[in-house]
Formats: sequence, C-alpha cells, structure tokens
Amino acid sequence: MKSVLRVIKIGGNIIDDETKLTTFLKTFATLFTPLQGMGAILVHGGGKLATKLAAQLEVEQQLIDGRRITDAETLKIVTMVYAGYINKNIVAQLQSHNCNAIGLSGADGNLIQSHKRQHPTTDYGFVGDVDSVNTELLKSLLDQNISIVVAPITHNKEGLLLNTNADTIAQEIAQAMSEFYEVDLIYSFEKSGVLLDVNDESSVIRNLTKKYYEELKTPLQGMEAPRIFAGMIPKLDNAFAALDKGVHRVIIGKAEELQDLIAGKAGTSINHE
Amino acid sequence: MKSVLRVIKIGGNIIDDETKLTTFLKTFATLFTPLQGMGAILVHGGGKLATKLAAQLEVEQQLIDGRRITDAETLKIVTMVYAGYINKNIVAQLQSHNCNAIGLSGADGNLIQSHKRQHPTTDYGFVGDVDSVNTELLKSLLDQNISIVVAPITHNKEGLLLNTNADTIAQEIAQAMSEFYEVDLIYSFEKSGVLLDVNDESSVIRNLTKKYYEELKTPLQGMEAPRIFAGMIPKLDNAFAALDKGVHRVIIGKAEELQDLIAGKAGTSINHE
Repeated sequence: MKSVLRVIKIGGNIIDDETKLTTFLKTFATLFTPLQGMGAILVHGGGKLATKLAAQLEVEQQLIDGRRITDAETLKIVTMVYAGYINKNIVAQLQSHNCNAIGLSGADGNLIQSHKRQHPTTDYGFVGDVDSVNTELLKSLLDQNISIVVAPITHNKEGLLLNTNADTIAQEIAQAMSEFYEVDLIYSFEKSGVLLDVNDESSVIRNLTKKYYEELKTPLQGMEAPRIFAGMIPKLDNAFAALDKGVHRVIIGKAEELQDLIAGKAGTSINHE
Repeated sequence: MKSVLRVIKIGGNIIDDETKLTTFLKTFATLFTPLQGMGAILVHGGGKLATKLAAQLEVEQQLIDGRRITDAETLKIVTMVYAGYINKNIVAQLQSHNCNAIGLSGADGNLIQSHKRQHPTTDYGFVGDVDSVNTELLKSLLDQNISIVVAPITHNKEGLLLNTNADTIAQEIAQAMSEFYEVDLIYSFEKSGVLLDVNDESSVIRNLTKKYYEELKTPLQGMEAPRIFAGMIPKLDNAFAALDKGVHRVIIGKAEELQDLIAGKAGTSINHE
C-alpha cells in the first residue's frame, strides 16, 4: 500500500496575513511532525509583498489580461521575495515548531525544470511552464522526515530562473508523486470550499464528483449562466485533470481549517465518483 | 580512508563581478561533477547588492567599528538578497553546467543553528553566532552527488533568521564535517594568497606552517610592525584554529585560480607543519 502524501498550496492572502500564516504553520507543524509518519509538501504563492517591493523600487508592473508580465527586474524581485524572504521565514517558523522543513526553489536539486512560456501573440517575459519534477529528491527528503517548502520559482536548466504559477507547481508535484504515494492535493485559500452560492459561505459543496460537476456547469432551464461560480471553473478543470493523472483526492477549503480539510470534515473533496 | 570534501568560500567581490562569478562557477561545475566523485560545499557572501538595495529602499545602514548592524529592515534585505537572489542564481548557473546543486540557508533542514549575538556594549541586531551544523543533512546530500550552496543566513530554532558571517559559516561547516571527511577549507578572494609584501602579488607565501606564521608575526629587529599584513592576522588565526579542530588543510587564494588552488599549484596552503 502506498503511504499518504499531502501536497498543500497556501494562497497569497494567507502569506499576507501574519496572524493567519502563523496559525496555519503551527497546525501544519503539529500534523507533520516525524512522529505522525506523514509526509507533506507545502507550496506557497507570493501574495502582495512582491507588488509592494516593486512599487518601492519603482519597477512598473505590466499586466496583460490580468496576468503579470515578468520582466528582468520583476524576476529579480520575485526571486528575492518568494525564494528568499517568504520561503525562509516559513521554514524558520516551522523549525521553531520542531517541524524539520527545507525550503527549495525549482532550481535547487533540479526540483522543477521548466521552459520559458511560448505564446503566439503575448510575451509573458520570464514565466516558466513546468516540464518535469525531480521525484527522487523529494522522496529522499521525505524519507528523512523532512517537509518540503516550495517557492514558485523554477529554472530552465540553462541558467535562467522563471516565475511560475504556484497552483500549477502544486498540481505538477502532486501528479508526479502519485506514482509513489497516495497523494492528497489541498488548495487552501480564503473561502470555505467550492460554494453553490458564491455569496454564501455555508453553501459549501462537500463532495464534488465529475458527474455532479458536469451538472453544475450546465445552466438550469431558462438560465444562461452555469450554476457554479465561473471563476472556479479553471481551478476545478485542473483538479479533475489532476485526478486523471493519478492524484487520489483534491481538497479545496479554508487555510484556517487545515486539520479538518485533511480529515475530510471541511471543505470540498473532489473525486472521480 | 576518509573521502575528500572541499568547503569553498567565495568573497563578495566575486559575487559583484558577473564575469568573474560565471567563470568561477564553470570551473566549480567542472571540478565537482558526479563523475569526479568529489564533494563540495560552496559558501557565498553577499557583496554590494544588499547595500545597494538598502540604499534604493532608503534603509539606513549603521556601522559600528566597521561592522554592519542588522536591524529588522536590513535582515529582510539580506534574507532576500543572500538566500533569494544570489543563492538561486548561483544554483541555476551550476545546474546549467550539469552540476546538481542545492541552495540552502541555515534554517533549511536546520542546517546551521545560531544564537543572537550577545555583546556587553554593542547591540549588533539580528546577527547570529553559530552553535551547530547539521552534518547528517550535508552527508545525505553529498551521498546523492549533490553540491551544496550555502547562503550566510542562519536561524535560532525559535523562528528568527539571523545574518551570519560567511567566513565563519565556511569554517564551522569545515570543522564539523572533518569528523567524516578529509576537509580542505578554501577561501577564495581577490588576492593571489597570503602575501609577504601586501603590494606585491608575486610575493605569495606558498606554504604557511604554524612555526613560520609565528616568525612572521614577530617584528624583525629594529622594526615595530609584524612582517605579515595586519589585516590577514584574524583570518590566519581562524585558519589555524580550524586546523586545530580537525580540518586537513586551509587554502587561501584567487577565485580565478580555483583549480590550481585545489591542486596545490597556487595560493597559500596553511598546514600545522
């Protein structure tokens, strides 16, 4: 039987809120001490710190269709903030709670190799799309009861660091590790889960199967919009793609409820059937 | 017989010079590919990048007796620059030369634990003095043919990151690893080695024994100053202390001559006798 591995993504709004982050890391450390015999990989986004630093340094941020363009100066900033400041502070906090964590970027130990995004009309700059995950390195660290904290910076094996979406990194790691572990992929963010009514936090869909998801995507008779919040659709499509690639379960829910998310007592659990 | 391990410190002036750094890393990668069967740990300083960023962010740098005081804002800057920008760029460059490197701060995997410096009259701020080195983690990575790149940031195991002198980190790692390896500790900087005449690059002392060092520290008859450049004395005292603590050899020389330094064809080799 494969042992269980949790790949947990924490969103930017948790990073930006010192109290929330501290609480989250305490829970994480309690759940993933060596005694528990459970492995975990934490993937963090960047939050608003990079944007704030860019403003201070008067580096103008370009957005195309809501996506940030990573020019050379912005790449330098996100490398400093994500792989330096945020990553090392998370690791130091986990260490203080006796959780032996190691912080890595995708360049470290060739953890995540990527290529510069090619797009017919838009130059996204130094943005990387993932090619491969070094599962051997992750396994070796997990075998030593070390938890891994991954910053969303990858490299192209030709000396270039690349800014990479943290949701995608979590998904790619979860998929690659499914060969060796029963992987739960957990997206923790500010909402209680996938909501039937986006304005009602109590309308969490507890179990979302492929069949039910297809139903929710189909507008009700006489309506135009799907019943599910449109902004969630790309995330959910990715979640089902991850299941297709061997991930055991995808869980979406509130970072503050990490323990209940893992125990299946909160959030939305996404399964094939 | 113990296998050989090289602990190499590169000085700030190499970090600041892109061409010199690139050349150095190419040589490093050639020497320490898995095929060579030799392990290496690279410790880097910070150079002028942190000072430059502090100026841009209008964070005033305080110096007491020539030593930088690390206040909270400066700690944030050095964490970003040392553990983020410099560390990850070195790793990405080594990866491009097929040298599988991993970049770590002292917090990662509890690599280097330290305590906040206590001083009777001066508050150095967030500066750490080293308590311990996690040799198990280093051995495990070296066994996987991974080279380690260490940023001069440590932690106190209570959640605090601390700015730590890179020369000291190199020395502490070399000393701790001497239990398991025959360790060469190499300080590479801008000079050709320890010079008899500080203004003459050709006056390199090729072999410096304890006995010869004591002679050089004693002023010649009728003279007041020791024959050796006063600025080198603390470095050399530390070098001999490292030998006392089990380090096999200490080598001091030019970063551009790394290969010759290792082969004993350049620089100053410091031995007990």
